[in-house]
Amino acid sequence: MTSARFNLNDALAVLERTPASLTALLADLPDTWSRANEGEGTWSPYDVIGHLIHGERTDWIPRAQHIISGRTEPFAPFDRLAQFEESHGKDLKQLLETFAELRRQNLTTLREMNLTPPDFAREGLHPALGKVTLGQLLATWVVHDLDHVTQIARTMAKAYTEATGPWIEYLSVLRDRT
Amino acid sequence: MTSARFNLNDALAVLERTPASLTALLADLPDTWSRANEGEGTWSPYDVIGHLIHGERTDWIPRAQHIISGRTEPFAPFDRLAQFEESHGKDLKQLLETFAELRRQNLTTLREMNLTPPDFAREGLHPALGKVTLGQLLATWVVHDLDHVTQIARTMAKAYTEATGPWIEYLSVLRDRT
Repeated sequence: MTSARFNLNDALAVLERTPASLTALLADLPDTWSRANEGEGTWSPYDVIGHLIHGERTDWIPRAQHIISGRTEPFAPFDRLAQFEESHGKDLKQLLETFAELRRQNLTTLREMNLTPPDFAREGLHPALGKVTLGQLLATWVVHDLDHVTQIARTMAKAYTEATGPWIEYLSVLRDRT
Repeated sequence: MTSARFNLNDALAVLERTPASLTALLADLPDTWSRANEGEGTWSPYDVIGHLIHGERTDWIPRAQHIISGRTEPFAPFDRLAQFEESHGKDLKQLLETFAELRRQNLTTLREMNLTPPDFAREGLHPALGKVTLGQLLATWVVHDLDHVTQIARTMAKAYTEATGPWIEYLSVLRDRT
């Protein structure tokens, strides 16, 4: 398996592409796909975009600033279910626009922090995981985006599990996280 | 889990979005991501785009035409490794452009077939799976796109497995297909 060291430019390259990629995939998509889920307690693509918005507001940049400012108390815990309140009454296109705008602002903030490699070793305290570094936080931001891209595509795919008939045998995505 | 019946407009909505979504994710992306793989015998995002191109050329529309023309012999088998020859010497941006152009042409062809619901029950013979319907073929085209979107995002994510440190515990994508 390919293993890469954290690199700010590599991380930015993914973080800045996620909103456009998800907008191209999801904007104006029929509810068949955007409101599909994988079963009780699972999230639709619509729910996931709300979750990504909440992360932009309360998770990644606030925690990076927490570390850089040298604060020693743990980060505030992240609310994984906030989107069910916050997305209420908004359509998917509005959510995609909000996500893109917040991400743009956050990457401007990140660039203005002028971080250099020694900064990536600076430590913060995660409320559950304990000691983490700024580099690990930023790498996690990237992987978190990609995890939710897989979740969205997998959830959409599963809506057509039965429709594929005998081809189900070749389509491994239909058996992921079941 | 949400289960939807095959519907041509729903299928087209996904099929027409895949090239733009993958181009937004992958164009000009550092090799750290586009050439990453999940280990020996697995495919990089670059390899996957070549595979999608080969499918546009030899799989979906030729098989749909095979069914509609009433041919009773099995479909020609699909070569799952053709991209390793065909992509040779091409950069990722060229491959993304080729994929987008072939997909555009194929969806024009599909629309011009003027299919109606009874057509989706028409049958063809898959060389390994036996009897399949046109509706199942077209549903599989959609799920195949989404399967490879998850593969691309998962492969990219895994390049940062170690970089996420203790957060690995929360990032399920790093444990998919391992």
